Amino acid sequence: MILFENVRFLDTTLRDGEQTPGVALSSEDKVAIATKLDELGVNVIEAGSAITSEGERESIRAVVAEGLNAEICSYCRIMKQDVDHALACDVDSIHLVAPVSDLHISVKLRKDRETVRQMAVDTTEYAKEHGLIVELSGEDASRADLEFLKSLYIDGVQAGADRLCFCDTVGLLVPEKTDEMFRDITSAVKAPVSIHCHDDFGLATANTIAALRAGSKQAHVTMNGIGERAGNTSLEEVVMTIEWLYKCNTGINTKEIFKTSRLVSRLTGIPVAPNKSLVGGNAFTHEAGIHVHGLLADTSTYEPIKPDVIGRERKIVLGKHAGKSSVTLAVKEMGFEVDDIELHEILARVKELGDHGKKVTDADLQSIAETVLNIQREAKVILEEYTVVSGNKVTPTASVKLRVDGREVVEAGIGDGPVDATLASIRKGVASIGDVQLEEYHVDAISGGTDALVEVLVKLSKDGKMVTSRGARTDIVMASVEALLNGINRLI
Amino acid sequence: MILFENVRFLDTTLRDGEQTPGVALSSEDKVAIATKLDELGVNVIEAGSAITSEGERESIRAVVAEGLNAEICSYCRIMKQDVDHALACDVDSIHLVAPVSDLHISVKLRKDRETVRQMAVDTTEYAKEHGLIVELSGEDASRADLEFLKSLYIDGVQAGADRLCFCDTVGLLVPEKTDEMFRDITSAVKAPVSIHCHDDFGLATANTIAALRAGSKQAHVTMNGIGERAGNTSLEEVVMTIEWLYKCNTGINTKEIFKTSRLVSRLTGIPVAPNKSLVGGNAFTHEAGIHVHGLLADTSTYEPIKPDVIGRERKIVLGKHAGKSSVTLAVKEMGFEVDDIELHEILARVKELGDHGKKVTDADLQSIAETVLNIQREAKVILEEYTVVSGNKVTPTASVKLRVDGREVVEAGIGDGPVDATLASIRKGVASIGDVQLEEYHVDAISGGTDALVEVLVKLSKDGKMVTSRGARTDIVMASVEALLNGINRLI
Repeated sequence: MILFENVRFLDTTLRDGEQTPGVALSSEDKVAIATKLDELGVNVIEAGSAITSEGERESIRAVVAEGLNAEICSYCRIMKQDVDHALACDVDSIHLVAPVSDLHISVKLRKDRETVRQMAVDTTEYAKEHGLIVELSGEDASRADLEFLKSLYIDGVQAGADRLCFCDTVGLLVPEKTDEMFRDITSAVKAPVSIHCHDDFGLATANTIAALRAGSKQAHVTMNGIGERAGNTSLEEVVMTIEWLYKCNTGINTKEIFKTSRLVSRLTGIPVAPNKSLVGGNAFTHEAGIHVHGLLADTSTYEPIKPDVIGRERKIVLGKHAGKSSVTLAVKEMGFEVDDIELHEILARVKELGDHGKKVTDADLQSIAETVLNIQREAKVILEEYTVVSGNKVTPTASVKLRVDGREVVEAGIGDGPVDATLASIRKGVASIGDVQLEEYHVDAISGGTDALVEVLVKLSKDGKMVTSRGARTDIVMASVEALLNGINRLI
Repeated sequence: MILFENVRFLDTTLRDGEQTPGVALSSEDKVAIATKLDELGVNVIEAGSAITSEGERESIRAVVAEGLNAEICSYCRIMKQDVDHALACDVDSIHLVAPVSDLHISVKLRKDRETVRQMAVDTTEYAKEHGLIVELSGEDASRADLEFLKSLYIDGVQAGADRLCFCDTVGLLVPEKTDEMFRDITSAVKAPVSIHCHDDFGLATANTIAALRAGSKQAHVTMNGIGERAGNTSLEEVVMTIEWLYKCNTGINTKEIFKTSRLVSRLTGIPVAPNKSLVGGNAFTHEAGIHVHGLLADTSTYEPIKPDVIGRERKIVLGKHAGKSSVTLAVKEMGFEVDDIELHEILARVKELGDHGKKVTDADLQSIAETVLNIQREAKVILEEYTVVSGNKVTPTASVKLRVDGREVVEAGIGDGPVDATLASIRKGVASIGDVQLEEYHVDAISGGTDALVEVLVKLSKDGKMVTSRGARTDIVMASVEALLNGINRLI
C-alpha cells in the first residue's frame, strides 16, 4: 500500500483561522501570511469569505494580486450571491459549503434535504459556468446520514464539482470511524475528497491522518491549529507526522514551519502554548538533569526530531531537576571553571531554589556560581535614586542618579509613559560606558490586582553580545529598572 | 466488545507535568493540585520523584499526609537508593522506570540489555519486599525491541510487579501501530499494562485511546497536557473522548475539569492556549455571525458538548464576522431597543471596525449603538487631571482631579507603584457615588518595546452588578485609568 501519495494541503488559516474569536486580520496581514504559506508550499489558500464584507473582499483581492503559486480560494455558502462576490475577487476556486446533517439543515437553514441538494447542484453549476474550480463541502458531515451525503456528493460531481470535502464541524470523529467512512465515501465518488477536522477532543490530527490513509487526497489545515473554539487541524502536526512518522514526502518546505508559526501567532495575536507540539516554546527545550545527560550524549534520546528540521533551535534550561551535566554545561558556557566540589555545591543551591517554587534563571545561576566561587563582582552600574512623574497633562519625565564605575551620573529622560521615561534616563546615564541597545522588552501577563507581582524580561545587546535579564516587583517601573540594570551589569 | 471497561487514570501532573521547563511547584502548590485531582477522581497520583531532593521529598510527604483516596506514587529509577527515598516518603506505590530501547540503554545508562533486566528485577523484588505497589515501566518502549520488552515485562511480573507501563517517551507512536503493539503485549503478559504518551506530533490522545481499546487498563495523563517538550497526554481529552465520543463512563467527576485546569495553569504558570480543546479560553466561545445564528436556535449545531458538562459557560463575542443575530443579542443584553434599520447600521459599523483589523469589544459595541441611536450619554465621571510621582526613594503618590456628577473632586492616593497609586486615588474620588470594587485587573503580555501598546482589562463590581472594561494606551498608567473610568461610567 502506498501511503500519502501526492497529499495536498488546503490551508484555511486566513478563513477558519481568522474566525477565531477576537481575531481580525488587516489586508496587509493577510497578504503577509498568504505569501509565507505559499513559500511553505501549501496547494490551496482559502483567503476568506468574499460575502462577509467589502473589507474582506479587498483582502482577498490583495492576496490574489500577489500572483502566488497556490490556488486562491474563497468560502461560499450554496447561494449565487456568494459566488458572485467570489468572482468579483478573481479567485481561482471556491470552497462551497452545504449543510448536510439534518440538524444543520433544519435548525440553521430551516430547509429540507432535497432543497439543500438542489441549492448545492445549482450553485455548483453556476460557479462552473463562470470558470471557478469548485470544492463542494458537506458541513457537519460526521453527523449526516451517510447515504444522503454520498448521493449529494455524486450529484455535485455530476454538476461539475472538481473536489469534495467532508467537514467534521464539531470535532466528533475518532480515527477508526474516520477510516471506515472514508473507505466507503472515496470508493463511492469519482472526485478527490478532502478532510476538514476540528480539534474539540484533541483528535483532529489523528482523524486527518486516518482519512488520508483511507483515501482522502487533501487535508484542510491551519497554522498552529487556530480556528473557532478548539481550532482546526494543525498544519505542522499533519505535515510532520507524514514526513517523520510515516517517512513520506509532503512537498512542504518544513524548514519554514517555525517562522510561519511565529508570523501567524504575531499577526493574529493568538499565543501558542509552551507545550504545543513542534511549534510551542518548550517543544525543543530540555530541563531535567537526567534527560539533559542523555541528550548531551545523543540528541535523539529525548528528541523525536532534530529542531532544525522545522527551522528551530534546541534550548537547554535549568531548574530543580537540573543534574550535574546540565549545570556543568551552563556554568561552562558562562565562562566559569569549576571543580567537582564546587559543582556539587552549585547544584545543591540550584535545587534548593527550585524546591522553594522558584524558577532558576541564568542570572540566578550566575549569581550562585559567583557566590560559590567567591567571586566579588562589583556591579559597574548602581542605582542610587530615580524619580518619575507622569500624568495626563504632564510629559512623563524621569530623573536618575547612578553610580557608574564609581562616578556619580545624573540624567533625565522623557518617554511615552513612566516606564519608557525611566528606562530612557538610565540608558542616557550609562551611555559613557557603551551603547546598550534594548532589543526586546517583555512583561508577562499580569493578573490579580494592581499590586500583583510583575515580571519584566529585557533583552539587551552591546557590540554583538546579547543578554536576557529579569526583574520582578509589584511596581512595573521598579521591575523594569531592575531588569535593565541586571542586564547592563552583565553586559559590561 | 466492551470498550473502556474500568479504565484507570494515573495522573502525573505533579511529576511529568512539573518537569516542564521553568515550572517549580512548592509543597503547598502540590498539595492543592493533588487534592483537586483526588476530587476529580483519578486513581493514582504520581506526586514526584523522591530521589530528586529533600524539598521534593517534603512535598511528596505532604501529599501523602492528606490521606486522599487516590494511590500516591513516586517515580523511581531501577536503583535501590531511589526505592529507599520513596519508602521514606511513605508512598503507596512506585513508578519504576527502566530504559528499554537500545538507544537509551547504551547512550544514557551505558549498560546492556541483560544488566537492565537484572536491575529491573532486583529493584522490583526489593520494592515488593518493602510493601510497595510496583508499576514497572519501559522507557522509550516505542523504540525498543518488542521481544526484549515483553520478556522484561514477564520477568518483572515474575519478580512481583503489580502493573506494567509502556512509555512512548518521545511521542513517536501512531494509533494503528499502538493498537498492534498493545494487542501483542497485553496477550503476552499477566499484569495490567498502562499507556504513557507524549504529544510531540499531536497524537498523544489518539494513541492513548488506541492503547485502551487494545487492552491497556490505565492511562497516564496530565492536566492541560503539560509536561516536558510538547507535554503528555491531556487528562481532559482522554476522559471526554471516552465519555462523549464512546459513551463510556470513566468514573471522573467531569464537572470539576475546568476548575482543575485553571488551578494547574495558575500554579504552574503555564498558560493554556485559547484554542486548546475543552479547557482553552475559546473552546466554548462563538463569534461568527452565521454560527451564532445556528447556535441560538440549537446549541448543539456548533458545540460538540454543552460546556456545563465540564463546569464551564458558553461565551458569545462579536467580531467582523458578526451577523445580525449575534449583534441583536448583544445589543439587547445591553438594554437597547433597536429597529431593523438601526440594526443594519450598527452591523455595518461593527464590520467596518473588524475590516480595519480591530477587535470589537463590548465597549466598542456600546459606543457604536449609542452613536447610531443618537444617545447622548453624559459620562458621570470625567477625568480632568492626574499626576503621579514614583521612584525607589519615593512613596508612589498620585493626585486626581475628577468631575463627578458635575462637581469637582480632588483626591490623592498612595500605592505599590504608579498604577496602584493612581487607581487608588480615582476610587477615593468616586466613593461619594458608590462603592466600586476592583474585582480583577489584567494586563495582556506586553512585547516589543517600552512604547508598545498596553491593553488593560478591569472587572469592576458595584452592588452585585459587574462590568468588564478595557483601556489601550502605550502608557500602562493611562491605559489603567481609561479602563477604570470606562467601567465606572458604565456601572453608575
